[in-house]
Amino acid sequence: MTDSLHVVGIGNAIVDVIASAHDDFLTKHGMVKGTMQLIDETKAEQLYAEMGSTIVTSGGSAANTVAGIASFGGRTGFIGRVRDDALGAEFRHDITAVGAHFTTPPATQGPATARCLIVVTPDAQRTMNTYLGACADLGPEDIDADLIRSARVTYLEGYLYDREPAKEAFHRASALAHEAGAKVALSLSDSFCVNRHRDAFLALVDHHVDILFANEAEIAALFESSDFDTSIARLRELTAIAAVTRDVKGSVIVTPDRVIDVAAAPAAQVVDTTGAGDLYAAGFLFGLTNGEPLETCGRLGSLAAAAVISHVGARPQTSLRELLAQA
Amino acid sequence: MTDSLHVVGIGNAIVDVIASAHDDFLTKHGMVKGTMQLIDETKAEQLYAEMGSTIVTSGGSAANTVAGIASFGGRTGFIGRVRDDALGAEFRHDITAVGAHFTTPPATQGPATARCLIVVTPDAQRTMNTYLGACADLGPEDIDADLIRSARVTYLEGYLYDREPAKEAFHRASALAHEAGAKVALSLSDSFCVNRHRDAFLALVDHHVDILFANEAEIAALFESSDFDTSIARLRELTAIAAVTRDVKGSVIVTPDRVIDVAAAPAAQVVDTTGAGDLYAAGFLFGLTNGEPLETCGRLGSLAAAAVISHVGARPQTSLRELLAQA
Repeated sequence: MTDSLHVVGIGNAIVDVIASAHDDFLTKHGMVKGTMQLIDETKAEQLYAEMGSTIVTSGGSAANTVAGIASFGGRTGFIGRVRDDALGAEFRHDITAVGAHFTTPPATQGPATARCLIVVTPDAQRTMNTYLGACADLGPEDIDADLIRSARVTYLEGYLYDREPAKEAFHRASALAHEAGAKVALSLSDSFCVNRHRDAFLALVDHHVDILFANEAEIAALFESSDFDTSIARLRELTAIAAVTRDVKGSVIVTPDRVIDVAAAPAAQVVDTTGAGDLYAAGFLFGLTNGEPLETCGRLGSLAAAAVISHVGARPQTSLRELLAQA
Repeated sequence: MTDSLHVVGIGNAIVDVIASAHDDFLTKHGMVKGTMQLIDETKAEQLYAEMGSTIVTSGGSAANTVAGIASFGGRTGFIGRVRDDALGAEFRHDITAVGAHFTTPPATQGPATARCLIVVTPDAQRTMNTYLGACADLGPEDIDADLIRSARVTYLEGYLYDREPAKEAFHRASALAHEAGAKVALSLSDSFCVNRHRDAFLALVDHHVDILFANEAEIAALFESSDFDTSIARLRELTAIAAVTRDVKGSVIVTPDRVIDVAAAPAAQVVDTTGAGDLYAAGFLFGLTNGEPLETCGRLGSLAAAAVISHVGARPQTSLRELLAQA
């Protein structure tokens, strides 16, 4: 690697399988709208059989962010586990096609490549059902130290905390990044995920995370408070930079000294909100690692989020660099 | 089958692999914008490796039409060959998920399920590269006579003429439909396909086809004339009903007695024209098999085409029945 990277992402390497459905489909299957639940392979097969016609395209929270940064023209890498199967090949194709370095070798045995069965309701909300498959075996041995050291920011998804070896991988990567003088960024991923790991996440944010991404539901879960101002005040004490997304209300960037409101960017249409948070993080980190002021980072995040919610699927379908040039 | 079917489609069972690219990608790979070319598996692998990040979703011209009719609430069946592989399972899932009868068993040996590598340029045009795979083995033995006899219309894609056994399947199905007192519909598929099979198609349209679907380029190729009025005059002599799509100019429905102009329906945005012709045929045939007048058939075609060009992918992402109820 001759050039240093802007961002390396570490996360679950997942292929999304997306269908539209009405709200009664969620009710029938006991899903909580807007959240992610973990399912086993049997449940994944059952649910797939009952879903409508699907679109299959690469996903995974941190992987979506990496693909977004690459689409802006940023230099990126990704660490995550797939199997040597058709979906694994599709995941690898898609992330390398946008120019990201993806050096984690595919598993030659064990569970299949992970799938996330996503149901999109007419209100454009996405509800996710994840079979972790090969991701469940991600561990500290998968952390490519050279890749981490070469990046200005190492970006981790909170979902990694759902498996013990992935959590160890998370800590190894975070320690390597800090030793190399780089920053560590974390996405809280999902309010249920925060509920599962609240104390660990609070300690992480306090001691190990330099840049935090979350939405309103996730910080409410983190601080067990429905009062937004209270949560913001807590964030100012805990982190150097936090960016909290608020759907149509845009986002709030919080530092110990400042609270910056950023407007949402206009979306041509709102079809599927999958990836909105991931792409906000992409724009923000592309700006930050290119030395832009925080206001600009927030606007880049809004721009990328608006682009991805205008179609089905969690990754940009056209170049964000070109979109930015037009904007 | 207790109820009779509105339409049975026979065609190539293909999974689409779609990426966006600039025009220079077409030039570099010697593709002719807006057309379909047949490629072998090696070329398919090479092209996939060079394409950008993809979306994978079921396609196939007649299969898209069947899925569209089912989305309107029509009773449909499909005949086409997949392999017993992951893409074949995806194709089967998607067409049965919308309610179509799909009884052709998967091949247990031979080439893989067909793929169409589709490049979408910024002008929303699609350029297609098809590896026929398992479709190449479709033959007369695959024609389910009961399924054909149960349908009011048997719909065939011109692409079937690219393989001799599929052509025989075409003729067997067409004969069965007519013996049962049903109608035979044909899509001309592609101007290059028409050039390959002009004389055969002219004889077909004259003697065996009751309802013809084509676009301007295809009828120009069929009659070797760039004069639209000349082509329309020829169609009036040859067929009972022809529907010619004209992009933003809508469509023209031609019978021996009448020529009916139908406006295009407004599209929220034009992102990817893949499937526009297939979905026009879906709306048209849904109307026709429900006894609607030709004007209404044309308007239903326009509605379905406008829906499918507003997103990436050749099949409707939401219910056409609900869209129709709203319109």
